Amino acid sequence: MSFMTAHATEKSTSFEAAFKEIGELFPSQFTQSDAILEHHSHGESWHPAAAPGGVFFAESTEQVSQVVALCNRHSVPIIPFGIGSCIEGQVQAIHGGLTIDLSKMNEIVAIHASDMDCVVQAGVTRQQLNEELRASGLFFPIDIGAHATMGGLASTRASGTTTVRYGTMRDLVLSMTVVLPDGEIIRTGQRARKSSAGYDLARLFIGSEGTLCIITELTVRLFGIPEEAQAGMCSFETIEGATKMVVEALQLGLCLNRIELADSLQMYAINRYSKTDLPEKPTLFLDLTGSVANVSHDLAILEELATDNGAISFEKAENKDAYNALWKIRHDALWASRALKPGAKGISTDVCVPISQLPQCISSIQDVVAESGLLAPLVGHVGDGNFHLVLLFDPDSEEEFKIAESVNAKLVRMAVEMGGTCTGEHGVGIGKKAYLDMELGGAVGVMRSIKRAIDPKNIMNPGKIFDL
Amino acid sequence: MSFMTAHATEKSTSFEAAFKEIGELFPSQFTQSDAILEHHSHGESWHPAAAPGGVFFAESTEQVSQVVALCNRHSVPIIPFGIGSCIEGQVQAIHGGLTIDLSKMNEIVAIHASDMDCVVQAGVTRQQLNEELRASGLFFPIDIGAHATMGGLASTRASGTTTVRYGTMRDLVLSMTVVLPDGEIIRTGQRARKSSAGYDLARLFIGSEGTLCIITELTVRLFGIPEEAQAGMCSFETIEGATKMVVEALQLGLCLNRIELADSLQMYAINRYSKTDLPEKPTLFLDLTGSVANVSHDLAILEELATDNGAISFEKAENKDAYNALWKIRHDALWASRALKPGAKGISTDVCVPISQLPQCISSIQDVVAESGLLAPLVGHVGDGNFHLVLLFDPDSEEEFKIAESVNAKLVRMAVEMGGTCTGEHGVGIGKKAYLDMELGGAVGVMRSIKRAIDPKNIMNPGKIFDL
Repeated sequence: MSFMTAHATEKSTSFEAAFKEIGELFPSQFTQSDAILEHHSHGESWHPAAAPGGVFFAESTEQVSQVVALCNRHSVPIIPFGIGSCIEGQVQAIHGGLTIDLSKMNEIVAIHASDMDCVVQAGVTRQQLNEELRASGLFFPIDIGAHATMGGLASTRASGTTTVRYGTMRDLVLSMTVVLPDGEIIRTGQRARKSSAGYDLARLFIGSEGTLCIITELTVRLFGIPEEAQAGMCSFETIEGATKMVVEALQLGLCLNRIELADSLQMYAINRYSKTDLPEKPTLFLDLTGSVANVSHDLAILEELATDNGAISFEKAENKDAYNALWKIRHDALWASRALKPGAKGISTDVCVPISQLPQCISSIQDVVAESGLLAPLVGHVGDGNFHLVLLFDPDSEEEFKIAESVNAKLVRMAVEMGGTCTGEHGVGIGKKAYLDMELGGAVGVMRSIKRAIDPKNIMNPGKIFDL
Repeated sequence: MSFMTAHATEKSTSFEAAFKEIGELFPSQFTQSDAILEHHSHGESWHPAAAPGGVFFAESTEQVSQVVALCNRHSVPIIPFGIGSCIEGQVQAIHGGLTIDLSKMNEIVAIHASDMDCVVQAGVTRQQLNEELRASGLFFPIDIGAHATMGGLASTRASGTTTVRYGTMRDLVLSMTVVLPDGEIIRTGQRARKSSAGYDLARLFIGSEGTLCIITELTVRLFGIPEEAQAGMCSFETIEGATKMVVEALQLGLCLNRIELADSLQMYAINRYSKTDLPEKPTLFLDLTGSVANVSHDLAILEELATDNGAISFEKAENKDAYNALWKIRHDALWASRALKPGAKGISTDVCVPISQLPQCISSIQDVVAESGLLAPLVGHVGDGNFHLVLLFDPDSEEEFKIAESVNAKLVRMAVEMGGTCTGEHGVGIGKKAYLDMELGGAVGVMRSIKRAIDPKNIMNPGKIFDL
């Protein structure tokens, strides 16, 4: 993207002095090689890359503590890095400094099957965890597109397709071990299922995007793998019909595990990408899990609700292969979108509104998109009111990028006016900073006070979420 | 309790100057009458009363803001008060000052049925809310013994019998309007079901027991009233058998709404108080809710699990009256306990441990209780690993009180060593302050930093949770 100026990285002599010390302490874990700096200069988004001055591959909480204390002494910015799958520029080293890569801290420390929880290091990916858990009959339910690390998921308060049933990272973390900006190691709490003992530091740190501490270990809730899973796809003439059906299903408390929505353009993209012949209409992807009896009972009700709300088709996945194929299609939706415009980049928006506002919000933004001339397929976690438009733009056209940005800005304003948020699950990073005051007003002042109290030197991922 | 010295209330001239201003601004809403000061000097616990210097009955968020700003100017301590049902001394005015009573802010501001949420003022009680909601087919699930206000429930991060299904106040609040110590009014977030926009201030304030802000309005999640509810009581020779059955039921994801445990002494107390003839053995009170099909399916599995785990009886509530009678017995358990020793007071303990530790924790503390000579029936939310011992003591016997306190202290130490917490749902107040450092170590330092940053004059419910 030639029109974009990469963020300048500041390299003070103080940074170099710190890097020298780290290199001497941990010669095999610290690097300034160009390829590795480049790899740590960006996530998976369109935001301009910004490389750190050095990367430290941590192997223990104690090492993180030691290196953070050292950076604090030298006032060196610190950016935590899991696998680099963030999409609002959270890992960009916009003020230079040291990236602490936690991907080697990938030990599953303990699985407590009776307590339905486990303890993992921050660099464990959710896929790795679920592999390990399989024999126990338990699983960790967060389901997002990326192979993210558990630390990264917590840092952005991630959620994904199964939130409608199991909640977000906010709900699934029991406690965390974190390293504070002065190097102190604390645990936010014990392993009890609930507690009223003091301020809820785990919840404060979840979603703080590395600006308050570095998460090194997490205790998370697990769930029994349901006996049965059934899925179906259900098409409508309008988004309104789909939304109305979802509201009724939620009020009835059906055993829904996923309720995903794709709009007509997304379905067109899917047909081309996944070689399918699905109706190119607003479509719900539905997943029911539970006991065989409950799933079959609730699936029948769901079909009735579909008919009552004007569905034009309801296709059940008749066997395990069809079930897997259906969810592969859904998980490939982002790639299908991108294939609509080869070579394009995309701004992946992330608003979340009260579900009653969803039809109006989607129809208004589709009007804006139509006027803009952009291609922007829509896919979303409709049970939560959260959706993503992939605003495709030519990376060599500043004009198209500016149009995409302005559509994004209009959508955020619309969502906030409807009682919604600028980000349902991607976080603020650098990409949503401009919208925080509009959404939260004076609350941002309180966030700044907390940041200053915990990180007075502003060394923890500075310039993310808000400026001080 | 003659042996206890009530906390001295500090009355500085500065307090009196503030009270004079408040009285002039709101003559009909401010009082210093003895009866009302006394009413606001305690909750429902054994802790010594401590009256404020004045009580202000707030009628709007703006009034709270105005009065808080005024108190800030005069450095007057402020204690928020809902209905006075707290049990760790949260409302005691241990440093004097002004109590702000929010019980008149009892308006249900909006019910959004499609979004399954509602907006209420802090003084609304959960019973009032559920009355109002009945026609909508929705309900608010928190179920505790007291007729608490929504603000009070949030302040202590309350939970109760249905947490195993619906979560605690932490999980059920979407956002809140709060008044900060300088009088500023902020909203912690919007009405979206989830958000990753900045620090999770709602979660920080939930459980902060009035030490950071005054909650004046809450947006909370609602749920569809289930089609069917079935309950049963199930007795075991040992707590271990009961716990094992609960673990298996949780792993299977049965549609359990409540899983409550009473020990043999509690069942003895229940038989005497509720004129029943139940087995005086460790007993589970079980509640299943959902569709008729699902409840009947899961109830059959539950009966199998009971047999497999050595249950000696499984009594189903055969109709609605029997169902209501069963849950009345459970909700009367506290009164049944107190009736064991007429005239006694009780320390109601509140530890929560990983469920695998529950049998060991309960059996160890029962040994301690037996040695102490106290009567202490046990009842608990076993699905969460949370239980209460009511340590009965003669309020005129300092010796008995000290014994009860020492049993409580031993139990907390044991729970913490097992990975548990000193309070699962009652909060810290003044009653659990002594245990916070033991449980949370350096994390308490972070809490203090946050307190100092948000409330630099320490006027918000000073001396609660921790000392600065």
